[in-house]
Order: sequence, then structure tokens, then C-alpha cells
Amino acid sequence: MAKFIPLSVPNFGGHEKEYVNEAVVSEWVSTGGSKVSDFEQAIADYVGMPRAVACNSGSSGLHLAAMVAGVQRGDEVIVPSLTFIAAVNPVTRYMGAEPVFIGCDDSLCICPDAVEEFCRDRCETRDGALYNKTTGARVRALVVVHVFGNMADLPRLTEIARRYNLVLIEDATEALGTRYTSGPFAGRMAGTIGDVGVYSFNGNKIITTGAGGMVVSNHPDWAEHAKHLSTQAKSNELQFFHDEVGYNYRMTNLQAALGLAQLEQLEGFIAHKHARWQQYKDALDGVNGYRILGFREDCTRPNKWFYSLYLTDDRHDRDTLIQKLHEQSIQTRPVWALIHQQADYGRNEAYAMAKAEDYRSHIVNLPCSTNLSEEDCQRVIDALLAL
Amino acid sequence: MAKFIPLSVPNFGGHEKEYVNEAVVSEWVSTGGSKVSDFEQAIADYVGMPRAVACNSGSSGLHLAAMVAGVQRGDEVIVPSLTFIAAVNPVTRYMGAEPVFIGCDDSLCICPDAVEEFCRDRCETRDGALYNKTTGARVRALVVVHVFGNMADLPRLTEIARRYNLVLIEDATEALGTRYTSGPFAGRMAGTIGDVGVYSFNGNKIITTGAGGMVVSNHPDWAEHAKHLSTQAKSNELQFFHDEVGYNYRMTNLQAALGLAQLEQLEGFIAHKHARWQQYKDALDGVNGYRILGFREDCTRPNKWFYSLYLTDDRHDRDTLIQKLHEQSIQTRPVWALIHQQADYGRNEAYAMAKAEDYRSHIVNLPCSTNLSEEDCQRVIDALLAL
Repeated sequence: MAKFIPLSVPNFGGHEKEYVNEAVVSEWVSTGGSKVSDFEQAIADYVGMPRAVACNSGSSGLHLAAMVAGVQRGDEVIVPSLTFIAAVNPVTRYMGAEPVFIGCDDSLCICPDAVEEFCRDRCETRDGALYNKTTGARVRALVVVHVFGNMADLPRLTEIARRYNLVLIEDATEALGTRYTSGPFAGRMAGTIGDVGVYSFNGNKIITTGAGGMVVSNHPDWAEHAKHLSTQAKSNELQFFHDEVGYNYRMTNLQAALGLAQLEQLEGFIAHKHARWQQYKDALDGVNGYRILGFREDCTRPNKWFYSLYLTDDRHDRDTLIQKLHEQSIQTRPVWALIHQQADYGRNEAYAMAKAEDYRSHIVNLPCSTNLSEEDCQRVIDALLAL
Repeated sequence: MAKFIPLSVPNFGGHEKEYVNEAVVSEWVSTGGSKVSDFEQAIADYVGMPRAVACNSGSSGLHLAAMVAGVQRGDEVIVPSLTFIAAVNPVTRYMGAEPVFIGCDDSLCICPDAVEEFCRDRCETRDGALYNKTTGARVRALVVVHVFGNMADLPRLTEIARRYNLVLIEDATEALGTRYTSGPFAGRMAGTIGDVGVYSFNGNKIITTGAGGMVVSNHPDWAEHAKHLSTQAKSNELQFFHDEVGYNYRMTNLQAALGLAQLEQLEGFIAHKHARWQQYKDALDGVNGYRILGFREDCTRPNKWFYSLYLTDDRHDRDTLIQKLHEQSIQTRPVWALIHQQADYGRNEAYAMAKAEDYRSHIVNLPCSTNLSEEDCQRVIDALLAL
């Protein structure tokens, strides 16, 4: 039986064991302890923001983002359909708000043309706020996901958000380390450009805390509000006074210990992601009915978190290919099913889905762990070339 | 400076470091890995249920409980006012439901007389469902919290719930290990008697996973539904199909590793809790304006998680006493502020609060860690006697 090559698993080549042991031996494993604030500061420093607020998942981070952004029951939020469902649930259903689904461009991120068209043609502005002409609801926010670590078109999307008075929520759960290298946002990291940004440290992400997330905001009071809401909204610790309905979304010291060790290795992980992506690209792009999808590299440094093999023609059926690789102990997966066809979202508006449907049908995500060796990567390539 | 005596901190005298290291070395720290299912089974076995569903906090466990119990937007839920606010937020505001607050009896748990009076005098039954005559809303559920590990009066409360067709949600977040020793529920654990029960493994609880919770139910399909909702409601793992709006409420393998080590020590922790409570009781009860509140011990074996010093008269002001102990490096706290006076709950109905208000004003919780030594306990006693 060949060695199993997983899709994306953690890589603990650094101080993980040492820092976690420190937490356990100190018996500071819960939400007290210094490692949480150390990790918050380390992430803030890395992404270049004054403050970052730790939480227990990317999902809870997005829920906090929607709350501090002021999303109200009955509001509408513009969201992408080609992404993980946790980008949509927390900012819409958890809030009693409704999504408007928009398809993607060739970056796999939300399509600026389609967002603009929706705002211009299907909405109207009254008293500085945008309203959906069909439903009458206020359109409050725009959620942008940097899919697979590829930066969305933020120069255009921020301009659209500003023009139509939409709060811009940047879902950077897959894009820690992705940054602009030129243009109006040169030097700025994914997650730090919109009104509020969210990172994830789930087990499959480029760095992991087991489960965890982080919120940053360009409105200092929003970041503080996220902290308050994540800690049960206690206004007086000793007396148990709570001034609003809060949540237990805190990160633990044990999770933060892992995160500190992981963050030390992030730039090395990104270099590794780039090297393996190039290996796949050199061997497979334009060969045997395959394309290796690219990242926006003219003006950004992507983290290249996840790799997408695109099946260009009928030579390969997506699910058959996944099954055949599975039989050779190689784990792959299709890209997400479109969210406007999931759960109860079928009742919501959805626009410009042609590209998203095409990518959903033809993408297979390839193994991309930061400890994927050149040899194992070659085994995946050889298996694909033999199909 | 005298050694600091904390209120309640974790005690890692067992295999914590070993099991956590196993998880880190294996690189299974996230929501995959065998320790989560092992810990679920170990808790299920301990409390005598076929299935337990792990989650990332007691709060998320209570939210899952409310969802599987079918609490609907606009419903009302009967809840205690003298408890931590996380017993109320998830089952009411998170669901779009409204609380009806009820005071406590001398167990500090919700008062059965007052619950019965509310159901009988202020509600009416139509088509087998209970409706609040004032608001017209359906009263769907009753939340019982086993405060500080003291078992609520479940023979009466289950009978009231049955009579008025209320779902009984047992908040056993403070009561892991508390069980009936005689009566109709002899041998049964707190959390396993209502329709659905929730445990917490927060840092201050009798055993901890840093942060974490567990859901059990006497309806097997409710437990499975809780699992489904806690894992983003994926109906097909590979294809990313989601059949409802789910949550990322999963426990991680790293948390479960801690939990497994902690659970091995639980009965010893309970014995320790009993011994220190007896030490406080023998020295302070009836002395110097103090009472040590008891636990229901005629028919139950309480876990005695938290100790309550009751100030019987004007000799002591609660907050002054807490401050004076603080100056001697002894951490204590008042019992929770009543929830019907917190956040936006002032607009909801509240009944029978006299006892709850009295206990709120006169209780100080004393140090109760499971590694509190006899000597340190004596130091707290001596400090209290000198006041």
C-alpha cells in the first residue's frame, strides 16, 4: 500500500511541542494566560495592524465581524457563492440577514462586474443607503473572500463598496500572508484593507491553532467591540455585569501556544507553497487535459494556500479522477458546491453564476500541505499523467 | 507577599502533558483525530448515556440544545435569573426567542413553585401547547441549571415540564458528576434526565479542556442532530453539500486530549471538593455572621463544584469583604448579577425574585480549586474569622 498523501495537514516542525508544554505545565490552558495576547500582538504585527482579536474559529470571527459591522435583521449582504459555506452563514443567517449571491471571476473570487451590476441595476440609493429594489431591504455589506489565498480585486471592490455605501467584510480565512506588492494597496495584507477582516487557523489552513480565528479592523472601536462580544460582553468582570448579549468565542491559551509556534514558520510555509505549486504547474499545465490555475501575481504576493487543477475537456471526469487518485492513496477534492444551492439558500437571489458553475464542475484541489515533499508531489504528478 | 490563592483553577496532576504531547506529535490537533471520539465515549460511559456530542464550549452546547429542541423565533423559554448569562443567551437571544425569568429556591436552582405558578396562572394550554396569556407567545422550553453542582428539584421540574408540554433543557455545565442516590431518578446523573443536557469543560469547571462542552440527549436523533449542526451541517463530506445552516462548534483533538486526562481524575476531584467544603463548613458555618450554604445530599451526591459563603447579617458588606480578602491575596467573588437586569433582558418578564435578590446580595464564593490544600483553605478560614 502506497504512503497516504493527504490534501492539507498541519506541519509542526517548530516550537509547537515546547510552547504547548509551557501552557500545560503552567496550567494556563484556558482563556486566561499570556499566550493569547502574545499571539494577538504577533498577528497584528505580522499583518501591520494595531490590534488583532483572537477567537475560536474563522466562523466565529466572521460572526463577530458581521455584528461589529452593524448588520441588522432583515438586511441583505452581498456574498460569493463559490466559497466555503462558513463565509455566508455567520454574516447572514446567524444575523437574521439575507444573502445576495454573486458568482466569481477567473481569480475564483467574487466578480466585481457582477457586484457593480447588482448595485447599479437592481438597487437604489436613498439617504445614502443602498436598497434592493426587488425586496425593499437595505443592502448593508459586501463580503469578499480571498479564495485559496488569491487576492480578490480590492481596488475595484473597495471603490464599489465606497460608492454604494457598503461595509466591506474581508474574509481572509484562506489568505494569511497574501499581500499587495504594487498598486494603491502596495504593502498591505489581505484582511487589512476592508472595514473588518477575518483570519482562520483551522487545521487545514496555512498555519493552525487546531481551531481558531482572528479579527482585525480599520475602525479601532470595532476591534474592541469584537473583543467585548467574544468574551460574553462582560462590562464588569468581578460583578458579572453584561451590557449586551455576548458570546463565548474566546481562543484558549493552548490554541495560542500552537499559533505562536506556527506563525514563526509562516514565511517558510509560503515559500514551500510556492515551490510545490510551481512543480505542479511545470509538469501539468497544458498537458493531458489539465490546467493549473494561477494566482494574481502581477500586483500581489499570494500565499498560494490551495492548488487548483482545472480539467479542460472531456478526457477527465472530476469525480472519477478523484476516486482513481483515492485508490492510489492520494487525497484530492472537488471545489465547494455553490452555496446558493445549499441549505435553505435556494430562496435567495443569485447572479452571474456561469463561471462559478464551470469552476465547480472542473476543479480538483491537489495535495498542498507545507510538508509535502518534492518526491510525494512528483508521485501525484505521475499519477495524474498516467490517467 | 502571601501566596495567591485563586478562586478556581485547573489541576493537571494526571496524564495531561502525556496525552497533549501525543496529539501534538501526531499532528492531529484539529477536529480530526481519535481523541475527540474517545472523549465523547468516555463522557457517555461516565454519565451513563449511549452517546455524547463534543463541542467547543458550554455556550455552544446550550445553543445546540436549543436548536435540536426546536426552539423557534418568537417562542418563550423559562429560565433562571440567578446563573451565568451563558445559560440564557444561547437558548433565547441566539434563537430569536424570549426568556421568562424565574427566581431560585434555597438550592439556588430555579424555583419549582414559581415555574408551576407561571405555567398555571399566566399561561394557557391550547392543542397540547403552552401559551403565555400576556404575550400570546408559545412557551416552548424550560431551562434548569444545576447551580454550583447542586441538583435542581428534578422530580418536580420534570413533572411540571411533562404536564405543560415543555422541553426540559438541563444545563449541567456546573454539575458533571452530580447524581441522584435515591428517589425516582436514583443512579442517574445531572444532565441525563431532561430531554437534552449540556456539560462544560471551561477553565474554571471541575474538569477542563481549556474550553469545551458536551451534549447528551434522551432522544437519539437529537444527539445526532447536534453533531450535524456542530460540524457545519455537511451532508456529504467530499462534495461539500450542506443541508441546513450549521456551525463550527467542534471540539479539537488537543482539547479532547486534556479532557481524557482530566476525566480520569474526576472522582478524586469530587472527593477533594467534598473535603474542602466540609473544612469550610466546620470552621465557618454559624460563626461570625457566616453560613456555608449546603447541597442537596439527602437524595443526591453533589459534585460540590463551587462553595458559597452567605453573609447572614450586617456585620459584613459583600464587596468590602471581597476587597479585604483580595488584599491578602485571596480571590473570591460575588455570585452572578441577576440576568433579568442585564443586557437587554430588562424588557422581559421576571417572577419570584426575592430569594435570588437576597442570595445575590449576600453570597461570596470561596476558593475551591481541586488542588486547594488543607493549609491554604485554613488560611482563607483564618482570614475570614479575623474580619
